[in-house]
Amino acid sequence: MEQIQFWIGVIATMAFAVTGVLAIADRGVDLFGVLVLGLITAIGGGTIRDIILGAPVFWSENQIYVWLALGASVLTFVAESFFTQPQIYRWMLYIDGFGAALFAIQGADKAWTMGYGLPVGPVILGVITAIGGGLIRDILAGRKTLIMSHELYAIPVTLGCCAYVLVLNFIPQYALEGSVICMLGIFGLRAAAIYWDLRVPRMFITKTR
Amino acid sequence: MEQIQFWIGVIATMAFAVTGVLAIADRGVDLFGVLVLGLITAIGGGTIRDIILGAPVFWSENQIYVWLALGASVLTFVAESFFTQPQIYRWMLYIDGFGAALFAIQGADKAWTMGYGLPVGPVILGVITAIGGGLIRDILAGRKTLIMSHELYAIPVTLGCCAYVLVLNFIPQYALEGSVICMLGIFGLRAAAIYWDLRVPRMFITKTR
Amino acid sequence: MEQIQFWIGVIATMAFAVTGVLAIADRGVDLFGVLVLGLITAIGGGTIRDIILGAPVFWSENQIYVWLALGASVLTFVAESFFTQPQIYRWMLYIDGFGAALFAIQGADKAWTMGYGLPVGPVILGVITAIGGGLIRDILAGRKTLIMSHELYAIPVTLGCCAYVLVLNFIPQYALEGSVICMLGIFGLRAAAIYWDLRVPRMFITKTR
Repeated sequence: MEQIQFWIGVIATMAFAVTGVLAIADRGVDLFGVLVLGLITAIGGGTIRDIILGAPVFWSENQIYVWLALGASVLTFVAESFFTQPQIYRWMLYIDGFGAALFAIQGADKAWTMGYGLPVGPVILGVITAIGGGLIRDILAGRKTLIMSHELYAIPVTLGCCAYVLVLNFIPQYALEGSVICMLGIFGLRAAAIYWDLRVPRMFITKTR
Repeated sequence: MEQIQFWIGVIATMAFAVTGVLAIADRGVDLFGVLVLGLITAIGGGTIRDIILGAPVFWSENQIYVWLALGASVLTFVAESFFTQPQIYRWMLYIDGFGAALFAIQGADKAWTMGYGLPVGPVILGVITAIGGGLIRDILAGRKTLIMSHELYAIPVTLGCCAYVLVLNFIPQYALEGSVICMLGIFGLRAAAIYWDLRVPRMFITKTR
Repeated sequence: MEQIQFWIGVIATMAFAVTGVLAIADRGVDLFGVLVLGLITAIGGGTIRDIILGAPVFWSENQIYVWLALGASVLTFVAESFFTQPQIYRWMLYIDGFGAALFAIQGADKAWTMGYGLPVGPVILGVITAIGGGLIRDILAGRKTLIMSHELYAIPVTLGCCAYVLVLNFIPQYALEGSVICMLGIFGLRAAAIYWDLRVPRMFITKTR
């Protein structure tokens, strides 16, 4: 089980770095910028989470995630033309969605285990873990952030974290099964959004004036 | 007294969420974005303050502020056309100014009580408590931040925090009266700025080239 | 030695505040904005570093850096036309580069001494100390950040921090000499970039589409 989690974490970190770099590559970023923005996309969310939790930042205890993110970023820089093939890029989006699902549940779980701000804290921190890194990347790169994009990305993440908190609260004996189901739920919704190009319906958007 | 403070905090938090959402509603934000940006406007400043202080983040100990901010944000989304009436919106600006005054003095007081970086620390942290949430909201929403706006908002807040630190340092026996007067002073200056549409005079602005 | 470090710190802090203000002065910023942005440029990087380290923020223990940064910011506001003379501005850029070199090695050293996330932590935190304040300033001011600029600024800083970590790891008995050499190396590369107006070569930049 531990080992499965580790490998999922490896895949998710690398996917975040790759999609993070691809998101800003079309702006003409130098290799240093690629490393910084890839790294921030992959580990930024967890870093904010740990700072808010008052816990040691996770990558200070295990640098493997830093190396993976840097490695994936360099790889993306070198093989940019490979990753920007529509077919491959689409695959990356799915893996990124899987990573978001994993990071969200991991983050919520960490906050819950620490008893942090129950019941609302784990939801907030799960969402931050999943989308925080991408937000900092977009701010540094001068891009429109996810918050303003009407993409169905943060909403599945939030719903999944809420569901997981309900599981932990009411049926804690099924925590493990619940975590897997919530993760799959987030991933399923996100995958559907990618596949059918779903966006937030108009009635849930404020009127532009 | 405790109870008065609590209710002022309730009003201030909701006012921040409402004006926070109204500030970005004209950009076409979806309901999730409204929740995130309303929440950040209301609790973001206090969160940064507590992180810098190394103290537990305030909403991890009492979720009421999170619920109030989320509730006020949803309300603003649903009743957008009510809140954007010029008359109502103006009222909201005054309540928001009142909230800023309260948060600033609260923040300065917390830093002073912890003996944090005296004497300059409480001023910096009071200002961050009052305007930090709005700054993050504007950055995430891609808006020009308050810092660049020439509005008379942060200046009253800063002056009030300086005055409060002087009170705490030289006449600590009048701390309570001083806090009320400084709060009213901030609110008075801000209200005057709203009423007469005052801005920073030209001579205090760098020359554009 | 202690005293030399102190005076270098004084010069670096003031230089960061001056160049920080000059960087945004052409946007028409009011005096309050000048104070905030000058202060953030000078102490923002060290603040993020200490938050990530979980250490008390450095300016909470010695306010001299806050006063220096505020003083230098006001001075720049008042004497803007002096500092924007091409000859003087160029001097400021060199001093700023010197400040970045000092802050980077200081930051890396602090993280190393705390045993934080070795070996990669000190490099990340050295870079954050040197460029973090400028990044927040640019974000608040709505400017393109350093990360997107192709300037040779962060790259010398990163190389210097890597070299210093190698020194600390393999020849710790030469830590002092190593720190001076790494600092001079960063400054030398940065000065060369200013003097010959060097930028990141095209082959290290992603293709704009």
